[in-house]
Amino acid sequence: MEIVVQKYGGSSVATTDKIKKVAEKVIKKKEEGYHVVVILSAMGDTTDTLISLAKDITDNPSPREMDMLLTTGEQVSIALLSMALNAKGYSAVSFTGSQLNIKTTSIHQKARIKDIDVLKLRKALKEDKIVVVAGFQGVTEDNEYTTLGRGGSDTSAVALAAKLNAKCEIYTDVDGIYTMDPRKLPRARKIDRICYEEMMEIASLGAGVIHYRAVELGHKYQIPIYIGSTFSDNIGTIITNRGGDSMEETVITGMASSTDDIQVTLLNLTSSTESLYKLFGELAAGEANVDMISQMLTEDNKMHVSFTIPKTDVQLAKEILNKWKEEDESIQWEVNTDIAKISVVGLGMRSHSGVAAKVFQLMAENDIEIKMITTSEIKITWVVDIKDELKAIQLIGKEFGLEEPAE
Amino acid sequence: MEIVVQKYGGSSVATTDKIKKVAEKVIKKKEEGYHVVVILSAMGDTTDTLISLAKDITDNPSPREMDMLLTTGEQVSIALLSMALNAKGYSAVSFTGSQLNIKTTSIHQKARIKDIDVLKLRKALKEDKIVVVAGFQGVTEDNEYTTLGRGGSDTSAVALAAKLNAKCEIYTDVDGIYTMDPRKLPRARKIDRICYEEMMEIASLGAGVIHYRAVELGHKYQIPIYIGSTFSDNIGTIITNRGGDSMEETVITGMASSTDDIQVTLLNLTSSTESLYKLFGELAAGEANVDMISQMLTEDNKMHVSFTIPKTDVQLAKEILNKWKEEDESIQWEVNTDIAKISVVGLGMRSHSGVAAKVFQLMAENDIEIKMITTSEIKITWVVDIKDELKAIQLIGKEFGLEEPAE
Repeated sequence: MEIVVQKYGGSSVATTDKIKKVAEKVIKKKEEGYHVVVILSAMGDTTDTLISLAKDITDNPSPREMDMLLTTGEQVSIALLSMALNAKGYSAVSFTGSQLNIKTTSIHQKARIKDIDVLKLRKALKEDKIVVVAGFQGVTEDNEYTTLGRGGSDTSAVALAAKLNAKCEIYTDVDGIYTMDPRKLPRARKIDRICYEEMMEIASLGAGVIHYRAVELGHKYQIPIYIGSTFSDNIGTIITNRGGDSMEETVITGMASSTDDIQVTLLNLTSSTESLYKLFGELAAGEANVDMISQMLTEDNKMHVSFTIPKTDVQLAKEILNKWKEEDESIQWEVNTDIAKISVVGLGMRSHSGVAAKVFQLMAENDIEIKMITTSEIKITWVVDIKDELKAIQLIGKEFGLEEPAE
Repeated sequence: MEIVVQKYGGSSVATTDKIKKVAEKVIKKKEEGYHVVVILSAMGDTTDTLISLAKDITDNPSPREMDMLLTTGEQVSIALLSMALNAKGYSAVSFTGSQLNIKTTSIHQKARIKDIDVLKLRKALKEDKIVVVAGFQGVTEDNEYTTLGRGGSDTSAVALAAKLNAKCEIYTDVDGIYTMDPRKLPRARKIDRICYEEMMEIASLGAGVIHYRAVELGHKYQIPIYIGSTFSDNIGTIITNRGGDSMEETVITGMASSTDDIQVTLLNLTSSTESLYKLFGELAAGEANVDMISQMLTEDNKMHVSFTIPKTDVQLAKEILNKWKEEDESIQWEVNTDIAKISVVGLGMRSHSGVAAKVFQLMAENDIEIKMITTSEIKITWVVDIKDELKAIQLIGKEFGLEEPAE
């Protein structure tokens, strides 16, 4: 009998009524003839409540004790879902990460799954039970409780699906992945199929739906991941090994835009690889998360470098740059905070050249200045002034068919 | 270094502020030069909140899943106390029942401790850590989570103390065991020392302070149990192998009274052991909790039997008795619901005969009818009309010195 791993997020199990609805959805799958393994997150804002209890005690709780605290959240939801399944006449059994021997590294709060001993789980499935597993958690070799960090439950689900050679379904409160955040492109289209590489290139496409790490794991073990809505029967999105399977592939699958970064430009650096190494080395040492980088040489053998970093890292960047300026007064630098960073991604770009050219053309025709651009095989990212953000998004959305067809 | 096991109940850890105060108390003990092991209950009414979540799901949750749910309560409090201890600069580590391998029978919700593997715990103490343990919980051989039922955390504490050959201290929101419930004897005296047998004979003396099972375990392994207040430094009560250690032992150590029972009297039973066996057998089969029993033979070889049962079992008793009456119309029975059941207990009774006589005398002199009486070596229990309850308590309290001395 085929196995399906279903994961339900915190908002899907936020109340006992919602847990009962999840039970119905699980039972439906079971009745379709599958063995069902369910991975749950903690109910609603339980995790936040637990964190605030810890903050009441100390500003600096030990990561080990935080994990001891936080792992209770999923344990509550798995017990309740098992009860709900039992109450509807289905045999179900819940397991914590410790009970299932979900072995992780020993870095508390940021553990990574090493292996899962699925013996106990397979035994329960053989007894025709629905198995309900606490997501987000595991244990070290010494049976110390660990959590997997952000997106942990998604990762648990994909890892279990890989171990069980099962289908993987992630249920949440949206009904799939969209070509673009509908707050910025109101008629954004739901994507039927998207490939792992595309999802990984624009992690924000899955923001709040599935975590990057889970997609990465799905890619590694070639597990197709279905994303759908817990409380509707709309068809969702499948993340798999390749994009849309129509003969004529879409060139662009999705788009993202962020106004959370700033652009830093340095003029007149001494042109050497060493100085670049030094600059980005110091930024990395300070854990500033540099994203786009572009550089060019000037006639007098100096270098201009421009890069983007998150707004939260701006203070750090300024300190590093001021120190440099003290050493070499010829260096000038400026910061632009009013930028938007727009990205498009599409496996189709590999075979369709000229996407970058099309972007240049669209922006130029509409008087939008491109302040910086970087390209990869399946992704183009460029920076525009924040005032031009929505206009640029609309132009791209229309040109590359990212919106619902007009009725 | 000597080990102390301290147990703090739910009301002692009801808020994060209270948990910080508990941390101070634990540290004080540590600073006195002890290794400290702390057993905690769940915070305040957490357990009730979890139970009501389960009730929202189903009226009849599986005991296994209830244990999965309830064991999260203590896990939260141990994590928070460890954080509080760490924050004050003390090395502390928390363990669940599963992590400490507190092996129990496999009867969920009513498990009994079989053994505790204290290897991990001793290792942590050796590293000079304060060890914080989740009370009330354990695991089966298959690592299924279990709970110990009512009074479970007390039992965990005494069991650990026995395994570690440690002192045992139970902290709660009262400062010891009193000679009598102060709501009924306002000037009831705090008892300095009481022996296990006395506590076990009148379980209600420790009601809300320490559970019967824990006292039983303390007795079995000869672990003295200290009962004190979490938030005051008043001297509490020690439960140990013998009562007060003054040369002249008090005759009566404590008193209890209950109005939760009814008295059933059957007249004209056919006098045979078989009929008694049948009567109490049927009551037991219905799980009616018969307490006192007295019988007498009449001249015509019939038997009168009188017994007490909890009010909650009265319907059940009536059904059984009515069936009997159908079979033998000569049987008459009556129920008296307006009774109080008063007990006195004292190791001193063994050597001081005449306590029963004194009770008879006091009641007679004050026109209080004794409706039934049973005696054991260290306990006398008698039934009076409910209207006479407080008067009888005052008379006994005064006669046997159960009140604070007048100032």
